[in-house]
Amino acid sequence: MARITVSPAEQLAELKRGAFEILPEEELLKKLTKSYEKQKPLIIKFGADPSRPDIHLGHTVVLQKLRLLQDFGHEIYFLIGDYTAQIGDPTGKNKTRPILTAEDVIENARTYQEQVGKILDMSKTKVVFNKEWLGKFSGLDLIQLMSKATVSALLQRDDFSKRYTNAEAIYLHEFVYPVLQGYDSVHLKADLELGGTDQTFNLMMGRHLQYAYEQEAQCILTMPLIEGTDGVHKMSKSMDNYIALTDTPTNMFGKLMSISDELMKKYYLLLCRRPAVEVDAMIAGITAGTIHPMEAKKALATEVTGYYHGEEAGREEREKFEARFSKKQIPDDIQTIIRPAGPIALLDFFLELGLIKSKSDGRRLIQQNAVKVNFENHTTDSLNLEAGQELILKIGKLRMLKLIGE
Amino acid sequence: MARITVSPAEQLAELKRGAFEILPEEELLKKLTKSYEKQKPLIIKFGADPSRPDIHLGHTVVLQKLRLLQDFGHEIYFLIGDYTAQIGDPTGKNKTRPILTAEDVIENARTYQEQVGKILDMSKTKVVFNKEWLGKFSGLDLIQLMSKATVSALLQRDDFSKRYTNAEAIYLHEFVYPVLQGYDSVHLKADLELGGTDQTFNLMMGRHLQYAYEQEAQCILTMPLIEGTDGVHKMSKSMDNYIALTDTPTNMFGKLMSISDELMKKYYLLLCRRPAVEVDAMIAGITAGTIHPMEAKKALATEVTGYYHGEEAGREEREKFEARFSKKQIPDDIQTIIRPAGPIALLDFFLELGLIKSKSDGRRLIQQNAVKVNFENHTTDSLNLEAGQELILKIGKLRMLKLIGE
Repeated sequence: MARITVSPAEQLAELKRGAFEILPEEELLKKLTKSYEKQKPLIIKFGADPSRPDIHLGHTVVLQKLRLLQDFGHEIYFLIGDYTAQIGDPTGKNKTRPILTAEDVIENARTYQEQVGKILDMSKTKVVFNKEWLGKFSGLDLIQLMSKATVSALLQRDDFSKRYTNAEAIYLHEFVYPVLQGYDSVHLKADLELGGTDQTFNLMMGRHLQYAYEQEAQCILTMPLIEGTDGVHKMSKSMDNYIALTDTPTNMFGKLMSISDELMKKYYLLLCRRPAVEVDAMIAGITAGTIHPMEAKKALATEVTGYYHGEEAGREEREKFEARFSKKQIPDDIQTIIRPAGPIALLDFFLELGLIKSKSDGRRLIQQNAVKVNFENHTTDSLNLEAGQELILKIGKLRMLKLIGE
Repeated sequence: MARITVSPAEQLAELKRGAFEILPEEELLKKLTKSYEKQKPLIIKFGADPSRPDIHLGHTVVLQKLRLLQDFGHEIYFLIGDYTAQIGDPTGKNKTRPILTAEDVIENARTYQEQVGKILDMSKTKVVFNKEWLGKFSGLDLIQLMSKATVSALLQRDDFSKRYTNAEAIYLHEFVYPVLQGYDSVHLKADLELGGTDQTFNLMMGRHLQYAYEQEAQCILTMPLIEGTDGVHKMSKSMDNYIALTDTPTNMFGKLMSISDELMKKYYLLLCRRPAVEVDAMIAGITAGTIHPMEAKKALATEVTGYYHGEEAGREEREKFEARFSKKQIPDDIQTIIRPAGPIALLDFFLELGLIKSKSDGRRLIQQNAVKVNFENHTTDSLNLEAGQELILKIGKLRMLKLIGE
């Protein structure tokens, strides 16, 4: 069994980095202290949704915290909620909640673990399926369990409260799910449960039920949801602003390099594994201007790509990127276009090449100094091409082409 | 199988007598018509509370309607809710809801049936226990069932809505009970469910669930709750204003004779078995003054006592009653008191004998012409007793004594 060598205070400081909240913090410190003194790992619970096996960087925010706890020597229970996955949505209203067969669940869980294995040490992670204990519940057992929660408490959950206020139907079984999820904590005797901020209510239900079952109640640690590469919306598949763990190294690195400087600070805080003090110093440096944002971003992209594709791959991507952009080198395989000499309407030209989605899109790029000719900003929508002239055009961060006049 | 010979319209008219509501009436008429045409009995559901085996006349209001339906040839399912009786109140808040063991339930059901057997023909009544089908429910089955009902629908039930508004806890399992009760209708494929007006919500839940399970939905028939002998509060054990089926014939007859004329009309409507037209005529006659209330009350008491102790017993009680009171006969065993001649302060005298609870109680009796001397009203609180005089005093309806002056 892993020895617990990091002091409770240090553990807490690392856990707090980037966390949305820890409830209650003093209680967690007590648990950490007891665990440290007795060299007894804490039981950490994390519930995975078995219906969504594809992981993107947004999901890693919590997973990195689990990795940290695992590094400290605690015991991670990776819980696959296969019990309720068998039910789907009996009302048929929620098309996004398909009924999963036992085979689906096993296959999803396998894919999920494969990806999670890039963050956690799976040999030390206990993967558990709640059908193992909930599957034994009779109707009466379930009724007994339900007597531990109140209607008004459930109606306080954000989404329920909104739907109730808007007179949208809440089906009774929907009230059962958080209670079952809470019971998982009772079964595991969890000390700490992690989740996104959208899970706060459900995590607190675990705490509440442990009280009801006269156990020491778990603490909860919630992590914020991060914005995707657009810097606006939460990272998600449906917004197409996500970075998947299965993205190629080049794509992952490129997408990370495309984010804004502000978002980069958040990504430092939430996606990388460095100690809290280092991350804090990095963010402070960027804000103060003593660390160049481009350098910081390359370091982040190198590091994060390295987590999922190996350090070597991270370094290689950095070199390729610098060769292409930062050192103003022109890639060997650059697209070359020959045009008659004379004025070129850039917006039409870009549209024709599929480099922009619309003229207003192109106009915005020009205004933002994202169109460069021979590595210098080009600020108008027209370009004069002379016969025999060779120009290197850069459009946005990732597209380059060579234009030759004849 | 009993032939169904009474026309649907007649059946409906008899069912309507005294009923609080039939929902929906046209649908019930259709069911009755179809049943009459096909000579196929309707399935009638009545849910009995297995924790309260003692039946009083208040409970017979619904039972008499069941008897009527049975007489028409329909099939009565007398449902003992033993499934949830095993649970009691898991929150421990409701002390009046004890956990019943399987033995308790069987014993209560036996006592219950014994009493119900005085109204229904038990040989034609199907006594069913819902543990038979609900007991097979797994946790998942229960969750599926719960998806058929909405939170807002349940919060519309009177008691839930009040508690929610008053911020009193409603435990989640309490929402399950009405749904289970409704599912009983699905299992039985009930055509009609009967209950008190306090059960309307639960009965409608049965209708709702039958829809959800794509069955023809049951109709519901609710009966009012009747006031006890005090004419003010609902008949109940706790108010001590009830007439138990196990009361002796004399007590039952006496209590029925003690009710007010107004309440008598209700009792005619709700407790007796005569055809609706007769009951209507009787009530109209009492109201119009063409039927003497005392005569009507004796007829009612004779009849109702007869239901539960046999017609012969009813007649005997009437004779005994008339012998004691109506015919001004003096019972053989009359209490005799000898007092010195002179004025007697009646209130003190009655108090001393325990005939009244207080002087104001006695004053009220005198004002109401309930104190008679030699069968004549006595309207003052003092009485002059002469030496050698023998007076018959009647106080209230039931107490008589002989007073002798010396």
